[in-house]
Amino acid sequence: MTLHLILGLFTSFSPLVRAEGPVQPLPAVTAPAENPQTAAKVALGKQLFFDPRLSKDGTVSCNSCHNVMSGGTDNRATSIGVGGKAGGRNSPTVWNAAFLSVQFWDGRAATLEEQAKGPLTNPIEMAMPNHDAVMDRVKKMPGYVEQFTKVFGKDSVNIDNLAKAIASYERTLVTPGGAFDKFLKGNKGAISEKAKRGYQIVTEVGCLSCHMGPNFAGPALPTGTGFYQKFPVYPDSAFIAKYNLSSDAGRAEHTKKSEDRGFFRVQSWRNIALTAPYFHNGSVKTLDEAVRVMAETQLNKKLSDAQVSDVVAFLETLTGPFPKQDMPRLPDTAGTTLLMD
Amino acid sequence: MTLHLILGLFTSFSPLVRAEGPVQPLPAVTAPAENPQTAAKVALGKQLFFDPRLSKDGTVSCNSCHNVMSGGTDNRATSIGVGGKAGGRNSPTVWNAAFLSVQFWDGRAATLEEQAKGPLTNPIEMAMPNHDAVMDRVKKMPGYVEQFTKVFGKDSVNIDNLAKAIASYERTLVTPGGAFDKFLKGNKGAISEKAKRGYQIVTEVGCLSCHMGPNFAGPALPTGTGFYQKFPVYPDSAFIAKYNLSSDAGRAEHTKKSEDRGFFRVQSWRNIALTAPYFHNGSVKTLDEAVRVMAETQLNKKLSDAQVSDVVAFLETLTGPFPKQDMPRLPDTAGTTLLMD
Repeated sequence: MTLHLILGLFTSFSPLVRAEGPVQPLPAVTAPAENPQTAAKVALGKQLFFDPRLSKDGTVSCNSCHNVMSGGTDNRATSIGVGGKAGGRNSPTVWNAAFLSVQFWDGRAATLEEQAKGPLTNPIEMAMPNHDAVMDRVKKMPGYVEQFTKVFGKDSVNIDNLAKAIASYERTLVTPGGAFDKFLKGNKGAISEKAKRGYQIVTEVGCLSCHMGPNFAGPALPTGTGFYQKFPVYPDSAFIAKYNLSSDAGRAEHTKKSEDRGFFRVQSWRNIALTAPYFHNGSVKTLDEAVRVMAETQLNKKLSDAQVSDVVAFLETLTGPFPKQDMPRLPDTAGTTLLMD
Repeated sequence: MTLHLILGLFTSFSPLVRAEGPVQPLPAVTAPAENPQTAAKVALGKQLFFDPRLSKDGTVSCNSCHNVMSGGTDNRATSIGVGGKAGGRNSPTVWNAAFLSVQFWDGRAATLEEQAKGPLTNPIEMAMPNHDAVMDRVKKMPGYVEQFTKVFGKDSVNIDNLAKAIASYERTLVTPGGAFDKFLKGNKGAISEKAKRGYQIVTEVGCLSCHMGPNFAGPALPTGTGFYQKFPVYPDSAFIAKYNLSSDAGRAEHTKKSEDRGFFRVQSWRNIALTAPYFHNGSVKTLDEAVRVMAETQLNKKLSDAQVSDVVAFLETLTGPFPKQDMPRLPDTAGTTLLMD
C-alpha cells in the first residue's frame, strides 16, 4: 500500500521526468506574488534572521540553528534552544529551502513565511510567549520601525511582515552554479570520474525516484503541496532499531491521520555533505552511513563500500557555492536593553 | 586611603593630561611585535570568533556574548553559556578592547591573546574540558589546518596560535572616526549643543579623572598594567544596596589581595549607549541611571535630570562608526559532525 502510494506519486510526474531527465540545475528563485523581493526587504530580513533579541532570553536567533556561515544547520542531532532544552527533530538547512513546496520535516508550513513564525514561540526554541511579545520588542527598536515603514508602509510592524522579510532574506540563500550544475549544463570535467560513477549509482539504484528535480527533493509541486515519503519503507533493516528510525510519527504528528504515520518530506541533497548528522532525529553521524541506511530502508538494497564512497563523492558535488554576504548591523536600543525586566 | 590611591593614580598621569587634554581621538591599533597583523590571520581569527563548534555542545561562539553585529555584547545582565547557565559578570564589549591594557573586569588577562583562551574552557561559558579538546576539534577541520599552516607555519594548530588569530581579528574591531572624534579634530558641528554641554559636565564633575584617554578608559599604560578603580567609592549611596554593587570582590577575586577588593578595570565609554545593561553585574538597565549611579557612588555628586540627559547625549556621540564586514564562511567537516559522540 505504502509502496503503491510512492509509485503512484512517481508515475504521476513521470512525463516531467522523461522530458528533462530526473535532475536539473538549480533555477532562479521565484518569490510569491504577495511577497515580492526588494533589496530593502532582504536587508531587513537578514537583520531579523540574525537577531537573538527575538528570543526570550536573547540567546537564540534563526541563525543559531540554521547557521548560514556553514551548511545552514547547527550540525547537532537536535537543536538547543532557550534554557538549554533540545528539540525533537534535526534542524533542516535553510540553504535552498526557498525551493521546497512545504517547510518542516512534516510539511506543516506551506511557505517560508509561515515557517518563520513557528520557532519564535516554540517553548524549546526561541520561547517567546506569543507573537505580540515578539513584535513589542521589534517596535522598541527604532531602526526596525523605520525599515518596516520604508518596506511595508505605515503601521506595518506586525508578525506577517516580519515573516515576509525573513522569508525574503531566505530566498537569497540559494546555491546555484556548483560543480554538478556545471556538469549538467555540459561541462563534463566539472566533476570527478568517481562522482560520475556515484551519479550513475543513484540513478540506477532508484534514489532519484524521490530525490529528483533541481533541488533533489522531489518533483515541482504547488506551494503547500508536499512531496512526502514513508521512512523507513522496508521494515526488516537492522538500521531501524539501531538508529531509532520508527518512533517519530512524522507527518501524522501534524495531521493526526494514521495514513501519514512515518511520512516525512523528502529532503534535499543540496549541501548535504555539510549538514551532518542525518535524518529527522539526527541519529546518523556520517554521510556514508546515511547513504547505506537510505539504500537499505528505502530501496531494500545493500551498497558495497565502493558504491557508497562513489555516491558520497557525487553528493559532495552538490555543495555550494555560497554567496558572499555582508554582516548585518542590528538596530540598537539606545541606552537600554530589552532583555531585562 | 582609597581616594588617596585614586588621586595618586590621577596625579601621576597629569602631565599627559595637561599636554593633550584628557581625551583624544581614537588612534590606530598597535599589534604586539609577537603577533603582527596579516589579512590571512584576521580572516582565520574571524572564522574562529564566529565558530560555535569551539564550545562543548556547539551552541556558543565568542560572538554569542560579544556580538559584533551590535554593540559587542549580548545586552544581558550576565551571559548565558553552554547548558543555559548564566555567568557571574556582564560581558564587556569586544569593540575597542584592543585599546585596553588589561582584559576582563578584574584585569586577569594582560592581552587579547590571553583573554581569548579563557571562555573556551570556562564551564559556564563554552565549557570545553581543556584546550587540547578545543584543538582536537580544530584539527579535524581541514579548512582550519590549511589556514593555520599558511598563517603560522607547519604543525602550528595550537591554542596559542588560535588565540593569536582571534586577537588579530579583535584588533580590527575598533571604531575611530565617530562624531566626537570629528569634534575633537576641529569639526565643531559634529556634535549637538546638548552633547557639548554633556562633555562640559563630565569634564567639570570629574568623570574624566578616570575616563580619560582616547578610549575613555584611563591613561596609556603598558600592556598588562591595568587602570583599576574602586567601585563604589562612596559607601553611603542608596544605589549600592539597590543594585547590589558591593558583593563582587572585583580584582581581589583574581589576586586574592584584600587591598584589591572592590577594584575593577575602568570601563571604556566608547559605544556605551549600545552596551546596556551596565556595571560588572549588569544590574542597571539604562544609561541615564548608570550616569546617576556613577556620579553618586564615585564622585559623591547628584546630577539633575537635565545634566544626566546632557551627559547621555554626549556619550551617544561615542557610538561607532562600525566597519563593514564580510560574513565569514566556517570550515566544514565533510560528511560528518564534531558535535556527536
